[in-house]
Amino acid sequence: MTDEIERNDALGYPILSGEIRSELRRFVQAHRPIVLLDAGARPALPALGALRGARGVIEVRLGEPRKRLSTVEEVLDRLVAAGADRGTTVLGIGGGVAGDLFGLSAALFMRGVPYAHVATTLVAMVDAAVGGKTGVDLATAKNAAGRFSDPAAVFVPVDALRTLPYFRLREGLAEMVKHGVIAGGSVFETLERLSPHAFWRWPWARIVPASIAVKTGIVARDRLESGPREVLNLGHTFAHAIETASGYRVSHGAAVSVGLRAAGLLALRTGRFSREEHLRVISLLTLLRLPLATAQSPRAVLDAMRADKKRRDGVLRFVLPRAIGDVEYGVRAGDRTVRAVLERITRLPGDDEFR
Amino acid sequence: MTDEIERNDALGYPILSGEIRSELRRFVQAHRPIVLLDAGARPALPALGALRGARGVIEVRLGEPRKRLSTVEEVLDRLVAAGADRGTTVLGIGGGVAGDLFGLSAALFMRGVPYAHVATTLVAMVDAAVGGKTGVDLATAKNAAGRFSDPAAVFVPVDALRTLPYFRLREGLAEMVKHGVIAGGSVFETLERLSPHAFWRWPWARIVPASIAVKTGIVARDRLESGPREVLNLGHTFAHAIETASGYRVSHGAAVSVGLRAAGLLALRTGRFSREEHLRVISLLTLLRLPLATAQSPRAVLDAMRADKKRRDGVLRFVLPRAIGDVEYGVRAGDRTVRAVLERITRLPGDDEFR
Repeated sequence: MTDEIERNDALGYPILSGEIRSELRRFVQAHRPIVLLDAGARPALPALGALRGARGVIEVRLGEPRKRLSTVEEVLDRLVAAGADRGTTVLGIGGGVAGDLFGLSAALFMRGVPYAHVATTLVAMVDAAVGGKTGVDLATAKNAAGRFSDPAAVFVPVDALRTLPYFRLREGLAEMVKHGVIAGGSVFETLERLSPHAFWRWPWARIVPASIAVKTGIVARDRLESGPREVLNLGHTFAHAIETASGYRVSHGAAVSVGLRAAGLLALRTGRFSREEHLRVISLLTLLRLPLATAQSPRAVLDAMRADKKRRDGVLRFVLPRAIGDVEYGVRAGDRTVRAVLERITRLPGDDEFR
Repeated sequence: MTDEIERNDALGYPILSGEIRSELRRFVQAHRPIVLLDAGARPALPALGALRGARGVIEVRLGEPRKRLSTVEEVLDRLVAAGADRGTTVLGIGGGVAGDLFGLSAALFMRGVPYAHVATTLVAMVDAAVGGKTGVDLATAKNAAGRFSDPAAVFVPVDALRTLPYFRLREGLAEMVKHGVIAGGSVFETLERLSPHAFWRWPWARIVPASIAVKTGIVARDRLESGPREVLNLGHTFAHAIETASGYRVSHGAAVSVGLRAAGLLALRTGRFSREEHLRVISLLTLLRLPLATAQSPRAVLDAMRADKKRRDGVLRFVLPRAIGDVEYGVRAGDRTVRAVLERITRLPGDDEFR
């Protein structure tokens, strides 16, 4: 490990963060992949260096509405046309949707060919590209068609973050706060010490690998999401319901931020979290300019929660903090308590939230 | 093991053949599956007994042109609508296309739910439902999108064969001859002793499990098709090319039968097979009323072979018999030799083929 590059092997394949140009060049020369390029990731290409040696580049326009099996089929047909066969390695370049969709395409092509991913957005770096989940949406349910499928390698060129506007960073920052609450300690404290200005000078090469390590540590113990991995859904039961209730006008990152506040409120109400620590989480979300409230009606959000795929036997279950660094999953909560929390998150916090 | 039911565990999950009603009833009561029913398999339902206890039945019209990702998406949406979740078991009922498509749907639904299959056609019983391959076609390539995904169980109700017309049995008979040539011995000889009339009185409950055992024995040693499993492609390089050249008007079973003759001819020409054994194979195909010749032009078939996904580094490779019971894979053959064989299979065999 040098200052320039950090390597994480907790999941059995390398996740390489930092100045990854030379590693990526070696990978391309060794495997001669066909590249699937998310059209939105073009600005990141200079940060990756040359892709000389690739057998071809297929550029695909993505975005959430295109995260469907029909796009997978289009990608597979283009792989055939580009001469891909069972021996081909696929290298995907792009954000979260790209990782989900290109990864699934490689998992299906000729019943599975090796796949490596270059994450070009913050949310892909710290969340989507880590953990082996791939998937697309159905008309009737988000992320409901996919596979657990480990990549051969993940590249995390933190330099590419400089090519993104702040509102796209926010998608990843909400997940980083989540990882901070789960892990606590220096992971959370380092985020608290970031300057609220000058995000382009943040120590990305340190905070990104630290956030990745939180996720890989958890996923390594529960690949197929049978239990412990559930903690990574902190804030997400609320977030998914807010997104659904808004007709997906609220972004995932914004919804996760509000969801983290909601999880804190529910933990407070059920007597498992301190007001002081709740204040620290709210303050960090504020420092990172992440939203704390939603315009969605409590009733619509509750209805969406009831339809959530993680609900079993009719009872809502949550991931809740007991402390920063100590998160519990599978916590049952009654509809009345949940509704009271949903009322609160339609407004910004008042002093009463913390005392 | 009783006379009525035969159990094969070579692949780590049970393949149950024969009088499977009571086993199927137990499975349905234990797992309360959602049933995916191939509309074409309705006539087989009485042979399966009641499906009481299933959480729902979704009937799907299939057929080769529907073997696409768009149909998978339709199935997944209908599973959501039927209330399926991550804890749901799916039970598919149908032929080869059903096993491929329902199996892939279950492998993708919520990133994979348990799947069991009831094979209702001969080709599904002895081939498609055995070995964990699932897949659909692309516009540009057959079976090019899929997964290796083991089922929880496979049910083989041989009684259901009585509900099929002879031309549908032929699809499976060609694969049974293939298994006979691969395994030799009693597997081949039992087929040779079948009466050319009265197929409804054939000892299906004996010959079907014997044919399945040939495939499971090979697949068990090579799950992911890295080498030895290749022998199961005996006759198939020719068959796929004939199907493609015909625009899929020639059925797979008919093409495999012609392909088995072609493999024998190529083995003869390259000095690895005896005329006597070639005659035995041709005689068995004739006894089973399987075709020996194709109307497709040698040039069109050769072109299709050249585009086959199993071709590597520009050389055609074949699976060829050295004897009945001894099959070799990865045999390279030059275009001229192959073309001479393709000329032969445009006509029925003359005496010169055997002396």
